[in-house]
Amino acid sequence: MKYVALVFSFFYIVSSTQAQNKDSIFISNLAYNIMNKSEAYSNLAFLCKKIGHRLTGSAGMYKAEDWGLKTMQAYAPNLCLKQPCKIKCWKRGAKENFEITTTKGKQKINITALGNSIGGVVKNAEILMLNDVADLPANAKNIKGKIIFFNKAFKNEDIRTFISYSKTGSIRRSGPTDAARYGAVGVITRSLTHSVDNNPHTGTTQYNDSLPKIPCAAIGYYDANMLAQILPTQTVKGNLTTSGYFHKDTVGNNIIAELTGTDFPNKIITIGGHLDSWDLAEGAHDDGAGIVQTMEILRAFNALGYKPKHTIHFVLFCNEENGGAGGDAYAKNILAFNNRKNIPVLALESDAGGFSPRSFGVTANATILANMQAFVPLLKPYGVYEITAGGGGSDIAPLMAAYKTPQVGLLPDSQRYFDVHHAASDVLENVNKRELELGALNMAAFIYLVDTYSTY
Amino acid sequence: MKYVALVFSFFYIVSSTQAQNKDSIFISNLAYNIMNKSEAYSNLAFLCKKIGHRLTGSAGMYKAEDWGLKTMQAYAPNLCLKQPCKIKCWKRGAKENFEITTTKGKQKINITALGNSIGGVVKNAEILMLNDVADLPANAKNIKGKIIFFNKAFKNEDIRTFISYSKTGSIRRSGPTDAARYGAVGVITRSLTHSVDNNPHTGTTQYNDSLPKIPCAAIGYYDANMLAQILPTQTVKGNLTTSGYFHKDTVGNNIIAELTGTDFPNKIITIGGHLDSWDLAEGAHDDGAGIVQTMEILRAFNALGYKPKHTIHFVLFCNEENGGAGGDAYAKNILAFNNRKNIPVLALESDAGGFSPRSFGVTANATILANMQAFVPLLKPYGVYEITAGGGGSDIAPLMAAYKTPQVGLLPDSQRYFDVHHAASDVLENVNKRELELGALNMAAFIYLVDTYSTY
Repeated sequence: MKYVALVFSFFYIVSSTQAQNKDSIFISNLAYNIMNKSEAYSNLAFLCKKIGHRLTGSAGMYKAEDWGLKTMQAYAPNLCLKQPCKIKCWKRGAKENFEITTTKGKQKINITALGNSIGGVVKNAEILMLNDVADLPANAKNIKGKIIFFNKAFKNEDIRTFISYSKTGSIRRSGPTDAARYGAVGVITRSLTHSVDNNPHTGTTQYNDSLPKIPCAAIGYYDANMLAQILPTQTVKGNLTTSGYFHKDTVGNNIIAELTGTDFPNKIITIGGHLDSWDLAEGAHDDGAGIVQTMEILRAFNALGYKPKHTIHFVLFCNEENGGAGGDAYAKNILAFNNRKNIPVLALESDAGGFSPRSFGVTANATILANMQAFVPLLKPYGVYEITAGGGGSDIAPLMAAYKTPQVGLLPDSQRYFDVHHAASDVLENVNKRELELGALNMAAFIYLVDTYSTY
Repeated sequence: MKYVALVFSFFYIVSSTQAQNKDSIFISNLAYNIMNKSEAYSNLAFLCKKIGHRLTGSAGMYKAEDWGLKTMQAYAPNLCLKQPCKIKCWKRGAKENFEITTTKGKQKINITALGNSIGGVVKNAEILMLNDVADLPANAKNIKGKIIFFNKAFKNEDIRTFISYSKTGSIRRSGPTDAARYGAVGVITRSLTHSVDNNPHTGTTQYNDSLPKIPCAAIGYYDANMLAQILPTQTVKGNLTTSGYFHKDTVGNNIIAELTGTDFPNKIITIGGHLDSWDLAEGAHDDGAGIVQTMEILRAFNALGYKPKHTIHFVLFCNEENGGAGGDAYAKNILAFNNRKNIPVLALESDAGGFSPRSFGVTANATILANMQAFVPLLKPYGVYEITAGGGGSDIAPLMAAYKTPQVGLLPDSQRYFDVHHAASDVLENVNKRELELGALNMAAFIYLVDTYSTY
């Protein structure tokens, strides 16, 4: 489907003052409606407090699907349905323990098993601290039978925190399997955060089926500092117990609402976030925020009587955190969705938290990016001051992979995101109502402009 | 001193790549130092948790002065001293009660007396709701003997929350005295916030000495909504008790640290925030943040061995909230400070909270503004993306009034500021360490650029 990307373009009529006035008036109406009548925060409160976590395959996931369907139906889309997808269902299990023995005696350390990790028991194994996965080969002879503690930390001077996340993420994603290659029996990772608290942060790890699967877990910021301080001066042994496992594969659902396009019904603009969350908290920022923002755009378009030219899909994706089955199923089915021959022309995801929006990141060719950058003057009054190259989301990445669909990600201020990301602190109380709403508002305005000016 | 403004200018060497490289390297060093070695957050923790509120004239104010002096001395300025200023000292007193009688019976409502208001008892007075001070004349005949409830609310669609504050502030500042002109016996104001909690927010009111002084207090968001809902349909009476009073005038202090300029010792750049706070909480954002950011710039300049060309003053201002004596005393004494003939060339204040910085606001002539806007490319990697017209701070306003000194205000993201402003929620827990540090970093970088490129 290479042709989609090649012919996809925007015609942004920057020379027409009349058009810009019309746009700024419509966006101002969106702003009034969303900032005063938004249901994003109350929806998030329901999702967080009445449903709670929504780990793939959990009861919460199914409750959230029903709630999402019902809530979006009330916003009068042309179509609203569940799209099934096959899911693998991981559970943490009941036991998670990590106890170390230092010169001062035994000490328990709070851990959270990494997502998709196995259960296992490691007894009295020496702990070896390495900074990074890349340090394994040089220490190859010293790893067998040990628990590896990967200590790679966020660099505070990396101002954009997602840079830190991308630089350190491999200790969690491939650290356990890479350590197993050298004979490690367990892995402890420093949490991917610079939060000044001691919450451990979970997140998916990926085993390599050809290597031994070993227990692995994350520890909090202060515990990591403590280990980093004592390990160079003494031998520390640890007992590690985890009890993760997969229960039976089953079926989950994407929830899709459609506003059918008046002019180009088969050209689809996708907006979404992911409905699943980790099991440690309420998934308020990750990604309850993206979910209620997606729903809010539908609500606001309906409230203002906006009939899009292109078909717009509002998608609550299934299983982003530890599988990606929802994004894959959506991409697989999009071309024949609703019995049409469709073309997915653009996808926008909100999966970076419900914080004050600052920009959009775009993965598309230079022409499309430049055309979108012409939107900035219309978004700036609402807090988005730039549109930059690079961005998107895990759920919409399969669309780009399959059809080169340009993808866009909302980029809110990132300073607080990794305080709560995948941790017990990801709760409603850490979401600000106005910041959440401003994200929805800028997404709605962006999509309105794409719908108005895209000729494809 | 008009000549100061007229000859003040910046020479920003935008054409010199070498200079820009030197600047970006220095700012990058500042970033590394501040984001890794900042004492801003630990200083704020001490100020909030070990000292607490710092209402003018309170024991906390004096403790904070001593702490500020000692802490800045440790950062090795050329001079660090207390600058006395005469202060009027208001106390809230022990009793604050508001009880209404509706068709459902009696109900207590949580209030906070407005700063500088008198104590008084109003019994069984009918409550009249008006939106704004401007509605008083039209209701002149209906006000005598009543408690006026000013209900003017923040407009949610005003994206920049300081716009809302400036539009509604008169209900608190002049509402009580203006209502007294028409015979009102008490005033209740809707808190100047759109926070979704029920904390009342205090702040200064200004009586007119030629009019009766009446008790006045603020109520929280939900209580204001409740009153606004019932008042149109029934007569509601209220008992209002406040017990504010002024104790004896005394002396407080600005705390001033000086880095004496190597090239222009008598040309002074001022950086500051205010050390006093309201008495309801810890003054964490207002303005503990500005205080520890000011101190942090001194610490970082010292740590990097930076010797400014101009003299830089780091000022912890006294009595901003309910008097302004600190700003007045500083301006009055600046010309002969440290036995020199000084010219105050620029002042920068941080008094809008310790949130993620977005811009600087500048009150100066168009040339100075344009010259400063050339700084933006160097600040953008750290989150400041524009420098706009308008801005400054209450403490530095007297410098501009007396000497036309250009004034600049740090403008962080404003969405959460009025959630905590002047309320019991203004505590350390609502400050994010990195956001606070980024404010200090951008202020430090801005001041470095002014010091480097100002020829005056």
